[in-house]
Amino acid sequence: MGASLGEVGEFGLVARVTADLPTAPGVLLGPGDDAAVVAAPDGRVVATTDVLVEGRHFRLDWSSPYDVGRKAAAQNLADVAAMGARPTALLVGFGAPASFPVESAGEIVRGLADEAASCGAAVVGGDVVRSDAVVLSVTALGSLDGRAPVTRAGARAGDVLVVAGLLGGAAAGLAALRAGRPDLAAAAAHRVPSPPYADGVALATAGASAMIDVSDGLTGDLGHVAAASGVGFVVDVAALPRHPAVAEAAAALGADPLEWVLGGGDDHALVATLPSPVPGYAVVGRAVAEPGIAWEGVAGVPAAYDHFA
Amino acid sequence: MGASLGEVGEFGLVARVTADLPTAPGVLLGPGDDAAVVAAPDGRVVATTDVLVEGRHFRLDWSSPYDVGRKAAAQNLADVAAMGARPTALLVGFGAPASFPVESAGEIVRGLADEAASCGAAVVGGDVVRSDAVVLSVTALGSLDGRAPVTRAGARAGDVLVVAGLLGGAAAGLAALRAGRPDLAAAAAHRVPSPPYADGVALATAGASAMIDVSDGLTGDLGHVAAASGVGFVVDVAALPRHPAVAEAAAALGADPLEWVLGGGDDHALVATLPSPVPGYAVVGRAVAEPGIAWEGVAGVPAAYDHFA
Repeated sequence: MGASLGEVGEFGLVARVTADLPTAPGVLLGPGDDAAVVAAPDGRVVATTDVLVEGRHFRLDWSSPYDVGRKAAAQNLADVAAMGARPTALLVGFGAPASFPVESAGEIVRGLADEAASCGAAVVGGDVVRSDAVVLSVTALGSLDGRAPVTRAGARAGDVLVVAGLLGGAAAGLAALRAGRPDLAAAAAHRVPSPPYADGVALATAGASAMIDVSDGLTGDLGHVAAASGVGFVVDVAALPRHPAVAEAAAALGADPLEWVLGGGDDHALVATLPSPVPGYAVVGRAVAEPGIAWEGVAGVPAAYDHFA
Repeated sequence: MGASLGEVGEFGLVARVTADLPTAPGVLLGPGDDAAVVAAPDGRVVATTDVLVEGRHFRLDWSSPYDVGRKAAAQNLADVAAMGARPTALLVGFGAPASFPVESAGEIVRGLADEAASCGAAVVGGDVVRSDAVVLSVTALGSLDGRAPVTRAGARAGDVLVVAGLLGGAAAGLAALRAGRPDLAAAAAHRVPSPPYADGVALATAGASAMIDVSDGLTGDLGHVAAASGVGFVVDVAALPRHPAVAEAAAALGADPLEWVLGGGDDHALVATLPSPVPGYAVVGRAVAEPGIAWEGVAGVPAAYDHFA
């Protein structure tokens, strides 16, 4: 049996897990001091934070510690990408019981570091505390490299709607795991999402007027863009990019795949509006002056996920 | 009775608590989008994160929600100051049970915002989740405004040691609260520390070679500087700036005040080394070539606080 957090202590854990963290070109001062220093080349930094709680956002009997780390990183890095920015750094707050294995904590950090490295970022700092539940709070930083941030508020009637990445996979995977079917391919999509990081910068460069990442479900997140921009949307449901594992899970579980595609969060696809179509991104709808979202080709639409509902 | 988090939901809470948040000059895009955008005028950003867990780092029967917010902000803002940087922004992750009153959550955020405003920063983003315990994770950002970061590693033998701020107050206050003596003045020092934010930039500008904020106790934190710099220290214990509430608490509780002054964390005084004395900062010791810390005028010294010990 390996050591527990209680045995090695806070400083021991921090020393162990940060000993061999990879760095990145923008990291001017990494972990180990009161604070890190990260390059912000255009004189601005993009910053976002998310908290994940065991039992609510992940389950360690469904996901490995490594996958929990990757997922926690991904959802924050996707928020940076959704501004049209390039992720540069992660800071990680980690709480766990004293009995938590040091090895598992190291695996979580390795997952965070690997996911960060996949888009050019690095873990630059963190904090370790004792808590009854396992809690991960992640802050992601990013650089706009001179571009304007792409907010939720810039969509205009007439803009086209595009989606980068896939929808419904994580929700299908959650349903599979709840049904005791970890063998279904969707389970992997729940454990580790694959946000299309590079598309954030690409869509911003192509002139995106608004952008958001799908973390609460397309219905809810597109609703956020509609509200912030003062527009409505007409969406061609058949054109939405479904995760390939959705169909198998729907058949195996006798479920309606549309609920996952339209209402499922955690895939972190990027949804953007643009004044006109751009090569490489299929048009899946358009912004309209009338408020509300019209889903062409479907009747009832599920509500967005609310953490306190 | 006011509403609970479970009643207003995550989005409702975020909307309420961010509705009237003050901003600051460096906030280019505040709360409400996928991420915030903060000025980083010299092309670098200082970043640090800390997690506070109810029952471990604060108790809501000892501290008001407003004070908890101020304390959570202070300990992160002090880390920024300890790099010689000027705080610019806070991001806040907040977890609480569904039964937690919305009003209390708003008070915590108001405390965070007021403490940030006290040093020119602002709350620019956050996340709200449901968790069994109340958890606060705070990330602070800052700007070096062209200066080099002041790390823990730059102290050289012969440097003088100075302390900005006060020592022992928070630990004395914790002892007072544990003893059921919230009437003692030290209790306030435990609830809301007063880090000397402006001294971080002032000491960096004056040529500080190393700096740290006292969060784990002077013995431990000076030990971090000694280890990182490869030096030892000789400290004149009588010259250390004691919080004025320490003496009263020691007398009332029959305790040794030195344990609080040398071993108590959470006051977030700034400890710095400089090649030579600077006006306004009393010299309390010096860096020496021999490893270890010699406390002149005292025998036994308590160990640093370890979160998993």
